[in-house]
Amino acid sequence: MAVNKRRLCNTQWIVVLPLIAFISTIWILHSGNKNCAEGLRSEDERIETLQSTIQAIKRQKEVLLSSLASKERELRNLKSEILSQKLAIDDPQYTLAHKKFSKSMTTIYVITPTYARATQKADLIRLSQTLQHITDVHWIVVEDANATSKLVTNVLKRSKLLYTQLSIRTPAFLLRQKKEPKWKKPRGVAQRNRALLWLRENIQLKKSNGVVYFADDDNTYDKDLFNKFRNTKRVSVWPVGLVGGLRFEGPRCNNGKITGWRVVFDPNRPFPFDMAGFAINLELILENYQAHFSSSVAPGYLESSLLSSLVQDKTQLETITPNCREILVWHTTTARAHLNREPYVKAAKTLEDDKVEV
Amino acid sequence: MAVNKRRLCNTQWIVVLPLIAFISTIWILHSGNKNCAEGLRSEDERIETLQSTIQAIKRQKEVLLSSLASKERELRNLKSEILSQKLAIDDPQYTLAHKKFSKSMTTIYVITPTYARATQKADLIRLSQTLQHITDVHWIVVEDANATSKLVTNVLKRSKLLYTQLSIRTPAFLLRQKKEPKWKKPRGVAQRNRALLWLRENIQLKKSNGVVYFADDDNTYDKDLFNKFRNTKRVSVWPVGLVGGLRFEGPRCNNGKITGWRVVFDPNRPFPFDMAGFAINLELILENYQAHFSSSVAPGYLESSLLSSLVQDKTQLETITPNCREILVWHTTTARAHLNREPYVKAAKTLEDDKVEV
Repeated sequence: MAVNKRRLCNTQWIVVLPLIAFISTIWILHSGNKNCAEGLRSEDERIETLQSTIQAIKRQKEVLLSSLASKERELRNLKSEILSQKLAIDDPQYTLAHKKFSKSMTTIYVITPTYARATQKADLIRLSQTLQHITDVHWIVVEDANATSKLVTNVLKRSKLLYTQLSIRTPAFLLRQKKEPKWKKPRGVAQRNRALLWLRENIQLKKSNGVVYFADDDNTYDKDLFNKFRNTKRVSVWPVGLVGGLRFEGPRCNNGKITGWRVVFDPNRPFPFDMAGFAINLELILENYQAHFSSSVAPGYLESSLLSSLVQDKTQLETITPNCREILVWHTTTARAHLNREPYVKAAKTLEDDKVEV
Repeated sequence: MAVNKRRLCNTQWIVVLPLIAFISTIWILHSGNKNCAEGLRSEDERIETLQSTIQAIKRQKEVLLSSLASKERELRNLKSEILSQKLAIDDPQYTLAHKKFSKSMTTIYVITPTYARATQKADLIRLSQTLQHITDVHWIVVEDANATSKLVTNVLKRSKLLYTQLSIRTPAFLLRQKKEPKWKKPRGVAQRNRALLWLRENIQLKKSNGVVYFADDDNTYDKDLFNKFRNTKRVSVWPVGLVGGLRFEGPRCNNGKITGWRVVFDPNRPFPFDMAGFAINLELILENYQAHFSSSVAPGYLESSLLSSLVQDKTQLETITPNCREILVWHTTTARAHLNREPYVKAAKTLEDDKVEV
């Protein structure tokens, strides 16, 4: 054992040297380890940075995605808007229907008395095609009959206008006698009064802006007329073409002020102008519930019979153009149709020609 | 030294034990180092993964950004489309103007002869307001006068329709004599022929699809008529209301085939129907350059004088509805206006009433 010990002792350098080597190895390893740990730490930091970068980019991506989704939604909305607009453009009636109560806010109540005759449908079609150019119009058609007719219903339905169809028969004492001239008996009185009654029963005061206009079915209306009288405050007047035996009849005015009247027939009437030449604010009609057309007045006094209950006199009237020299309505008359050859039509009864609506 | 050596020898365990500790430390450090290196390697890999993830997300982000940009572009386009459509909806005339030559590709040439009279403007306004409902229409108005008039020009301009204004005076021998009934002399012959000449001089064969229709200024036209005859191949016919002394006059047909004629006045005419009851393909007009209305024919033969040069006989005609029982045009007449009170108007000359256009 001693020998062994000595040998061992002698070899102490053998131990010491490796020891030094070991220590330096340890030191190297340790410092390597330390470097490695630092490397790991820095890599960890880098990973963290990268991960937070990823998080940030992901958040950006999410923002983009949601903004993309909102754009998609916007696109969808715009596309559907474009589609509905295309419908509107393709079908002007659709436009009119959808513009109602949206743009102008003042509804024009057009009151049209009508009666059965050969030219009735033609006249109503022509008037409906004029009214189709106007926004916010409510067409009140009153037939001189005990009940409304299918013919008029068809015209109204096809017009796609907002409408009300009424009927009332002219009382016997107001019917024109054979060979009695047209102007002797006032016409359309019961029908216009029926329409006024309908307004009072169905439209609520203060709830709606409106203006009332009496439009016979065979007159000619320039579509620009309607917007000119839409903002009537009380009663507005304007000249009418081809009426009263004149090229035009109605107010003379200067800068919107009425200065006189171009009229030959009975110029002393309280309101010496034609039915087609004035419009009334709806409120005035609703407030003065007793105001109506009187059937017992002398020829030419029908307009005055209504207006006398609404405004004091003709000085209170408004104009719709500065100089009252623009003619936008004509008192045209459609000539009676002659159907004298109808009895000579050679046709089998089965053809049912009477069922063809003319 | 020996003592030292011995001491050292004696303390060999002191050396060995730390040695073991050292070795294990080295081993630990080494394996730690190895772990650390592995960790570094794996972290490097992770970093690489993260970086490639970042690249991928960045690419996605770029895709999103470019898709967003394209959506933005699409939105901008849609918005401008909506704006232009809004303009179109607000101004139906704009719509009409822009739909011309876009949608239907077949232009309807509406030929209207007209003459000066009190009701002329009213009638033209009413017709223009009907035509305003129709797309792709070219209105050719021919005045019976040496020169075109300002009144007609004004109506045409205000209509915002595509139009051509012409004039030609009816030759003296065709003028109606005093007390001669209306139907004795054919009317509008020179004017309609003038329009046919204009078509032949201005529209090139094969370059344009078109259909020609003769529309007098006081008839009543349902706006649905026009699209029904737009696709006329040669000559199409349909019934007309309130003409020839009948409720309606024109072809009888069954499933689109003409089976007979509802007509009383001279049913043996080659083409026994009214001017308002047929349309002609433009090509037929342009190809048959000699075809025209003849003024020397008997009353009721005016239509036949033109059509005989275009189609062999009435069996070659087309219909526009299956059963020819829908009336879409009426031969209405506007009654003459009585201006008998005009001389009695009390007005200063300075008012220049004659300058008011009625």
